[in-house]
Amino acid sequence: MDMDLVALEEIRQVKYRYLRCVDLKLWDEMEDVFTPDASAEYGTHAVRQELSLYGRDAIVGYLRENLGRDIITVHRCGQPEIAIDGNSATGTWSFEDTVIAMKFRVVIKGAAFYEDTYRRGDDGKWRISHIGYTRIYETMQSLDDTPSLRFLSNKWEEPASDAGKAAE
Amino acid sequence: MDMDLVALEEIRQVKYRYLRCVDLKLWDEMEDVFTPDASAEYGTHAVRQELSLYGRDAIVGYLRENLGRDIITVHRCGQPEIAIDGNSATGTWSFEDTVIAMKFRVVIKGAAFYEDTYRRGDDGKWRISHIGYTRIYETMQSLDDTPSLRFLSNKWEEPASDAGKAAE
Amino acid sequence: MDMDLVALEEIRQVKYRYLRCVDLKLWDEMEDVFTPDASAEYGTHAVRQELSLYGRDAIVGYLRENLGRDIITVHRCGQPEIAIDGNSATGTWSFEDTVIAMKFRVVIKGAAFYEDTYRRGDDGKWRISHIGYTRIYETMQSLDDTPSLRFLSNKWEEPASDAGKAAE
Repeated sequence: MDMDLVALEEIRQVKYRYLRCVDLKLWDEMEDVFTPDASAEYGTHAVRQELSLYGRDAIVGYLRENLGRDIITVHRCGQPEIAIDGNSATGTWSFEDTVIAMKFRVVIKGAAFYEDTYRRGDDGKWRISHIGYTRIYETMQSLDDTPSLRFLSNKWEEPASDAGKAAE
Repeated sequence: MDMDLVALEEIRQVKYRYLRCVDLKLWDEMEDVFTPDASAEYGTHAVRQELSLYGRDAIVGYLRENLGRDIITVHRCGQPEIAIDGNSATGTWSFEDTVIAMKFRVVIKGAAFYEDTYRRGDDGKWRISHIGYTRIYETMQSLDDTPSLRFLSNKWEEPASDAGKAAE
Repeated sequence: MDMDLVALEEIRQVKYRYLRCVDLKLWDEMEDVFTPDASAEYGTHAVRQELSLYGRDAIVGYLRENLGRDIITVHRCGQPEIAIDGNSATGTWSFEDTVIAMKFRVVIKGAAFYEDTYRRGDDGKWRISHIGYTRIYETMQSLDDTPSLRFLSNKWEEPASDAGKAAE
């Protein structure tokens, strides 16, 4: 069977880098994971609207503006089913996300399947050209539902470290 | 070291496809992930019994019948340790599962290690020949324990889309 | 592009084996995943101190002593970004952990990024030479916050099986 294992690994790594940059708020490092014309469909029921972003700058700008230090995010994806066709590829991934909005004392949790496309540039690098997903479910609850809950640590409430500075 | 990386990727993909078909209720697409004589040990303490299924039709039929639109499932597996021996393989995977039974207002969560076997058919395709697992733990709780909890979205309560129709 | 896919797979597998040995309490099997001079930074806010361990024996000894049958652990990692340089490698992984201390009726949950190093020995095997991580957040809550919560199964309260015996 003809399978480009190196390209599969490169595509996985660009996806992982994207998610690490989201959760560690590394906006500058994030830019190179997208093609300049990348698009994203981030619409969720939590924000009650479709949210379509066009262009790398719009995507990174949106995340930078909306995921400040009062928002903890954890995006866990896996189970990649990637199909490569020349310099293009599609990928389906299972994922679960946790978003904790400290100011509003709520936690949003859910699961979905990513449906992405990727493109290999003239420099040989794979980048994300589209992010979309199908939601399975999404819930919101107050942190106050669990009276004993306390945060033992929160990276974003610590004095800014190098990673912290990158987030500002 | 002699390692069949293509076979490893094919085995991972068939496992991911199986789990995607479970969580998206794609019963027709699921059939080809199993060998005709596949077996499954789905027994859990939640259903208070061992549950052994023999044959692809029994497995897919059981899932189709028991995971209707009132049940949300999310199966997240990873950390594969796969060993290939000719046309057979074994695989251990860490996994966590979330099952939300909307009608009964309960959520069941747990973790386990899958212990699977795989077989390569005459057509060159790898398929799952056995699914089993060792449970680490499993809990059940009422959705009503968290008074503020609300569902922002639930794919299975939406008007049936293409994927939804496949589930019926 | 020059990419040692076999080494990547070997490094992934040694990491997965380490985590499986933690969660199944397989301390004897765990030893071979570390270089003799391996170090680990396990410090968490939950134990309110930095915890630096030097040497394979110290690491395995610490885990064996502190993760007895009254503690359920689930460590889920993925999203590996591994870079190999000769016989050394670095790896970043997203992970989430759940620790349930049955005696104290608490559950600790959190997320982090592992920052590991690996080394290939004279026998050609990759082993973990350092484990460290950057915490995103960590929470603790009482199991009693969710009145209806019950354990449907707990591997460590069952009569000792083979795996159970390995844990003692």
